[in-house]
Amino acid sequence: MGILSIDFGGTQTRAAWFDMQLNMLARVDCATRREEGLDSVIERIITLAREVVPEQNGGIDAIGICAPGPQAYTGLILNAATLPDWDNVPLAERIAQAFNGVPVYMENDANLGALAEYHRGAAQGADPALYLTVSTGIGGGAVINGQLFTGWRGLAIEPGHMKFRHADGRFYSLEALASGTGIGRLAQARLATDDTPSSLRGLTVMDGRMVGEAAAQGDALALAVITEAGEWLGWGLLSLVHLFNPRVIVIGGSVALLGNLIFDPVRRILAENVIDPLFLPADLIRPARLGDDVCLIGAAMHAQTKLDMLV
Amino acid sequence: MGILSIDFGGTQTRAAWFDMQLNMLARVDCATRREEGLDSVIERIITLAREVVPEQNGGIDAIGICAPGPQAYTGLILNAATLPDWDNVPLAERIAQAFNGVPVYMENDANLGALAEYHRGAAQGADPALYLTVSTGIGGGAVINGQLFTGWRGLAIEPGHMKFRHADGRFYSLEALASGTGIGRLAQARLATDDTPSSLRGLTVMDGRMVGEAAAQGDALALAVITEAGEWLGWGLLSLVHLFNPRVIVIGGSVALLGNLIFDPVRRILAENVIDPLFLPADLIRPARLGDDVCLIGAAMHAQTKLDMLV
Repeated sequence: MGILSIDFGGTQTRAAWFDMQLNMLARVDCATRREEGLDSVIERIITLAREVVPEQNGGIDAIGICAPGPQAYTGLILNAATLPDWDNVPLAERIAQAFNGVPVYMENDANLGALAEYHRGAAQGADPALYLTVSTGIGGGAVINGQLFTGWRGLAIEPGHMKFRHADGRFYSLEALASGTGIGRLAQARLATDDTPSSLRGLTVMDGRMVGEAAAQGDALALAVITEAGEWLGWGLLSLVHLFNPRVIVIGGSVALLGNLIFDPVRRILAENVIDPLFLPADLIRPARLGDDVCLIGAAMHAQTKLDMLV
Repeated sequence: MGILSIDFGGTQTRAAWFDMQLNMLARVDCATRREEGLDSVIERIITLAREVVPEQNGGIDAIGICAPGPQAYTGLILNAATLPDWDNVPLAERIAQAFNGVPVYMENDANLGALAEYHRGAAQGADPALYLTVSTGIGGGAVINGQLFTGWRGLAIEPGHMKFRHADGRFYSLEALASGTGIGRLAQARLATDDTPSSLRGLTVMDGRMVGEAAAQGDALALAVITEAGEWLGWGLLSLVHLFNPRVIVIGGSVALLGNLIFDPVRRILAENVIDPLFLPADLIRPARLGDDVCLIGAAMHAQTKLDMLV
C-alpha cells in the first residue's frame, strides 16, 4: 500500500515512495538528460521509479506525476518551456502501462507546489493561498476553498504572462522582467546604456544567479537590476493581491533565494500602491518552505485526493 | 413569503419584491439624493422598500441589499467611491431595525452583478465566470465552482486597481485608464498635446459618455481615445485571462455600451498577447445582459442562498 510520486523536470527527475499517511519513505533522483531523446528519458523515469517502490508491499495504490506545461493535467506533455521538443507526449499513459495500469494522476509543477505548500509548507491554513515559483520562468498555482484552482481548461494562474510596459516603451511579460532569465536580460540592457563599473561587464552569458551573486557582493549595477526585477514582481503581485485578496503568497524558485534583495522592492511597491492596507497582512509574502521536495509531496497529495474521490 | 431586494447606489436607489422562485413581482426606484444627508437617505430607502412589499403576504423572509464599497458584506458602507462621506454607516442594521429584525444580507454591487449574470444573464453555465462593470469606476466579481469568490477578507476582484505604466512614464490604475472617468482624463491629456480638430475641444467637463458620442460621430481624436482606453482594458483582461482562465468575462456598465468601439481593441490586445489560444474561446468576452436590474436580481439571489444555508 502506498503512492509512487514522480517529479519530472527538464533538468532533474525525482521519484519517491509515500505511505497512505503521506510520509515519504524513500526518495531517489537523477539527471533528466533530455538530449538523449524521448524514449530514453521515459525509460529512465520508469527505471528510477521502480527503484523506490518497496519489493514487499501491498502494491502501488496510485501514481502521482508532477510535470511541466500548463496542460499537464491531461497526462500529456506539451507547451512546456523546459521541454520544447516534447509535443503531445502521453507520459501518464506510458507510466501507467509500465506499472500494470495503476491509476496515474498528473499535474502541473506550480499547481502541485501550491497544494504542497498549502497542506505542509508556508501556506498552512491560509485560504486563498497563491504560490509562485520564480526561477528560469515564472509559474503559479492557487488553492481556493481548500481545492486546487485551475480554471476552465486547467490553464489558470500563469502570472508570468501578465504584461507591463517597460520604460523602453515596449510591453514585456512579467517572466521577461522578473524571472532568472529576465534578470539576465535586464542586466544586459542596463550594461549597454549605463557605464557604472560592474563585475558583470564583459560576461557573455548572464542569468539571475550571476546577477544575484554580484548584487550580494555590493555591485551597484547588479543591485539596481535586482531592485528593478523586484519592482516588476511587485507590480505583478499588486494585480494578484487586488484580484484574489489572498491570505498568503508563497514565493519559491531560485530567484526567491535572493531574499530581501528581491523581497524589499516587492513589498515597497505593494505598500505604496495597494488601495487598502487590509489587502496586506504583515505575513502576506512568505518564502517557500518545502525546497526541492515540494513537487514530490504535491504529486503524492494530488494522487491521494483523486483516489479518495473514487471511493 | 418573499424576498425584499434593495439596490442602493450613489445616484439611484431601487427596490423590488421577489417570490421564492426569484420572480420579480414589483419594482420601484427613486434618486438617492445623497446631498440631503445620511439619515434622510436611509429614511428614503426604507420608505421606497415598504412600497414594494405586498400588504397581504406571509411576511418578508429575507432582505438582500446591493451596496457600493468592497466591504459591503460586513453590512457597513465604507470606502465606497460614490459615497465618499459615508464612513462606517451600518446600513444593514438600520434596514433590519426598520423591518423588525428580518435577516438582512448585504453585498458589493459588482459581486452581486457576477452572481446574477452567472445564474440568469450572459454567463449562464460558464465557470469560472468573471464580471466587470466599467462605468464611473471599474468593479468586478467572480463565480468559481458556482459560488461567489470573495477572497480572504471579501476584497477580491478589484480589477480597477491593477496598475500599468503609461507612455508618459507614470503608473496608473486601470480605473484611471479605462473607466468613464479615465476616458475623460485621457481625452483631456490628448487635447493638450495633439492639435487634431475635435468637437471635444473647448469643453470644460468631459466624461466617457461625451467622448463616446463624439467617437460614434467619427471624431478622430475621440476615436483614438476610446481605442486607447480599449487597449488598456485589453491589457487588464490579459492578466485576468492568464490568472483565472475564465470561461466567460461579462462586461457591463456604461462604457460597455460603446460596443465594438471599445471591444475591438480589447479583443485585439488579447489575441496578440495571449500565450495560448486555448485561453480565448470565441465567446469569451460578452456584454452584460441584465441591464439596470442586475443588482436587484443579484441581491435577491444572494439573500436566498444565505437563507438556504441556514436550513
